[in-house]
Amino acid sequence: MGELCVRSVLVTGANRGIGLGFVQHFLRMPKPPQWIFATCRDPKGQRAQELQNLASKHPNIIIIPLEVANPTSIKAAAAKVGEHLGGSGLNLLINNAGMAKPKMLDDETLEDMTEVYTTNTIGPLLMGQAFLPLLKKAAQGSPGSGLSCSKAAIVNMSSYAGSIEDVYVWEFGQVVSYRCSKAALNMLTKCQSLAYKEHGILCVTFHPGWVQTDMGGGGSFKPPLTVDDSVQGMLKVLSSISEKDTGTFLDWEGKILPW
Amino acid sequence: MGELCVRSVLVTGANRGIGLGFVQHFLRMPKPPQWIFATCRDPKGQRAQELQNLASKHPNIIIIPLEVANPTSIKAAAAKVGEHLGGSGLNLLINNAGMAKPKMLDDETLEDMTEVYTTNTIGPLLMGQAFLPLLKKAAQGSPGSGLSCSKAAIVNMSSYAGSIEDVYVWEFGQVVSYRCSKAALNMLTKCQSLAYKEHGILCVTFHPGWVQTDMGGGGSFKPPLTVDDSVQGMLKVLSSISEKDTGTFLDWEGKILPW
Repeated sequence: MGELCVRSVLVTGANRGIGLGFVQHFLRMPKPPQWIFATCRDPKGQRAQELQNLASKHPNIIIIPLEVANPTSIKAAAAKVGEHLGGSGLNLLINNAGMAKPKMLDDETLEDMTEVYTTNTIGPLLMGQAFLPLLKKAAQGSPGSGLSCSKAAIVNMSSYAGSIEDVYVWEFGQVVSYRCSKAALNMLTKCQSLAYKEHGILCVTFHPGWVQTDMGGGGSFKPPLTVDDSVQGMLKVLSSISEKDTGTFLDWEGKILPW
Repeated sequence: MGELCVRSVLVTGANRGIGLGFVQHFLRMPKPPQWIFATCRDPKGQRAQELQNLASKHPNIIIIPLEVANPTSIKAAAAKVGEHLGGSGLNLLINNAGMAKPKMLDDETLEDMTEVYTTNTIGPLLMGQAFLPLLKKAAQGSPGSGLSCSKAAIVNMSSYAGSIEDVYVWEFGQVVSYRCSKAALNMLTKCQSLAYKEHGILCVTFHPGWVQTDMGGGGSFKPPLTVDDSVQGMLKVLSSISEKDTGTFLDWEGKILPW
């Protein structure tokens, strides 16, 4: 197993939960990235305070406002990232931003289905398109053949709830809009892996585990996994995967999940 | 194998292709349904002429205008169908209407992704919700336990192109908006099968084969399967499936496909 070694990474939804966890873990690496682009919808807001505090201590964190459901916002962010990088490329794009609406099948609406799909599925597609030139550049500038996350990769944060085969924790929540969007995100990842392989870009989709975040659970229920354990596990997996793994659906321990 | 014997069926996108094929095959059955609700967006239009001709000869065909991307249109259609049925239920709902936009991954847009998902995925979800009371009624009014298509069923027309495992005919067309919408439709079918089992409703998702329709191919290319062979195959499969098959992804010959 190699070590994950990236010069530049971008994480969406980086102000809390798993996204913030990624930023913290990148900072703690023996050789942290030169650029950590941490994006969120409202960097000035109360919910981005922790990320702002972190950035004030670490100049390699660059906070960029980004709404993944908005193509104009995505293009503006890609342009800003390109300026920061100068002539170099982006090694790692982590499409982490996502949303869920707790509903029963019979209460789903056109509006909710559309909103969840736009953020969870269309967003990662548009992000892949907008950052493709920078990812290509990173792949071209990296030595050696084959694919790796240290070279150039798209990591889509999906969920085991999006496994059509297993329909994980159906009893806990039907959340059909969420499940459909994540099954579609898994399909998108497979398509990205096929289309972007020739550009030297590895693509995977992750189940981060059932994690103690705002989305993971509320009230008296406590999910089994901490953000730290989930992110540490995923980074270990990212450091070890190669060309043969592109287009797969992995959990935070590297186990392949059924579609 | 039993014989498919339904008193009432509804087919969306019934004016051409596979939808029209279903209507024609139902008419040819030894015991045709008492009500064949054939819906399409524009029953008065040129592209519904063949269906209109058929209905003029067969009074058991009831043409109803329906736009599956429009919740108001769906509710109005469900009310009309309910009126025709009087006190009885709807045995079979065939969500056949669908669309595709031939595009490469890098040319997909927010608008196209949304439009295709709305018609191919959200439409079948809203149809299931709106016709649930009539499907329940059919299930309750049918003798025997267990699930069957003669009792009450939702049949979603998907595509092998929506198989994340196999990404069928990628070289022929990337059509990522279509693939994502069909993977999501497969997830929806699985969710419907779990939620509606207790109501006595069987739910399956179909790959009709690569069929000679407007969507199947254009220009000089001729897909391998005729509408007749596809529909005949699917009706044979529908006649034979039971409770153990609910929530599965089948092709027109009854073969189980990978998600």
